[in-house]
Amino acid sequence: MSEIEVIGLDADDTLWHDERMFMDISSRFRRLLEQYIAGDLDEGSIDVVLESKERSNLELFGYGVKAYTLSLIETAIATTRWRISAYDIHQIINWGKEMLTHPVDLLDGVETVVPLLAERYRVLVITKGDLWNQEAKIARSGLQPYFDSVEIVAEKDVSTYQRVLVRNGVKPDKFVMVGNSLRSDIAPPLELGARAIHIKYPTIWALEQVPEGFLNPDDYTAIDSIKQLPEVLEQLEA
Amino acid sequence: MSEIEVIGLDADDTLWHDERMFMDISSRFRRLLEQYIAGDLDEGSIDVVLESKERSNLELFGYGVKAYTLSLIETAIATTRWRISAYDIHQIINWGKEMLTHPVDLLDGVETVVPLLAERYRVLVITKGDLWNQEAKIARSGLQPYFDSVEIVAEKDVSTYQRVLVRNGVKPDKFVMVGNSLRSDIAPPLELGARAIHIKYPTIWALEQVPEGFLNPDDYTAIDSIKQLPEVLEQLEA
Repeated sequence: MSEIEVIGLDADDTLWHDERMFMDISSRFRRLLEQYIAGDLDEGSIDVVLESKERSNLELFGYGVKAYTLSLIETAIATTRWRISAYDIHQIINWGKEMLTHPVDLLDGVETVVPLLAERYRVLVITKGDLWNQEAKIARSGLQPYFDSVEIVAEKDVSTYQRVLVRNGVKPDKFVMVGNSLRSDIAPPLELGARAIHIKYPTIWALEQVPEGFLNPDDYTAIDSIKQLPEVLEQLEA
Repeated sequence: MSEIEVIGLDADDTLWHDERMFMDISSRFRRLLEQYIAGDLDEGSIDVVLESKERSNLELFGYGVKAYTLSLIETAIATTRWRISAYDIHQIINWGKEMLTHPVDLLDGVETVVPLLAERYRVLVITKGDLWNQEAKIARSGLQPYFDSVEIVAEKDVSTYQRVLVRNGVKPDKFVMVGNSLRSDIAPPLELGARAIHIKYPTIWALEQVPEGFLNPDDYTAIDSIKQLPEVLEQLEA
């Protein structure tokens, strides 16, 4: 296999916890709505409405906390049939603000592995979502000094990766992408002829889920923790 | 003066109308609130509350329509003292969606001047705001083929311009920035030793306004329309 020069790192749920904050808020959200919809709708149905709002809003809103907050408000209005109070809607906005100021909780091993990677490779962060909030999280993470470049993109598809690699002068066969989403971090780089390493995260957002058999497991490496990354990278180069 | 190689163009209210869409929505917003606050607050006071919400939310939300929509909802809740109905909050969210799908109205002259610029210079778009929405507007504008690079940034300050110029291999003395905001388009490039051309737009968002005497008018060129841009650029090089 050819030499590795550049590592691409996803951020949310690869470098720091993210999805569990959304899960915490959606559980508080279900409790908030209970008082309005008792007997009407069960908690599972709230999730179904929320997921469908998020899906239909994606094309307009894109990713991130502000989009999620607006989808929560729409879901609250729809499931309570316009009965939700302004007070409770304000509570939902405050949850959005809480998420935007949430401390950055690095995943176990990140603090030691990222500096090791930076000694040996060029490290690019490639993350999608809200520009403003992702920049704030990168600043708060303390990891910025280890990154050669931070690419915050609207969508992580093949054309985006291609643009990012060209812009950074990176050849796909010298590039390895690392992340938790098969759809956003693994499939597109593989299609460009790059290599990819999947680090499983316990939970994944409904809109990132892929069907069984989406990728051939032989086409990429799967690991359980970023701690295994340096060793796996050495094996890839061997 | 030294040769010009690269033109930086702001987008909102430089290439296409933007502020007037916000003004239209805020006028509908004032009418919506009238029924709740008649005799309580006048329309001017609503604007004051909205501006103060936008200002205090800026650090968390950043720029763009989603941030504005959340600030509208907060303003509605605050000024009506929790009396605003879920129905009317839903109306506000729909305004946000309307703004996100609004046709891109190019300013007069843009369609002819931008291709002319692209024949002679490298053209960078440097715009702040919501990544998702700005990409959508650039795609809808039909102008993408004339741009060498599109830089959507979180904030347009000196360090951002410096990063953008370095990343694109542009020397400040070969660069001219063009835009409608003295704060975001003119002052930071001047500080880096670049040149700047201010195209006045009839209205400007409160948070972009600068005090009288903010800049020395001798330090930059001011024009009334992008149509004057090719001629002014030739004069700058002469």
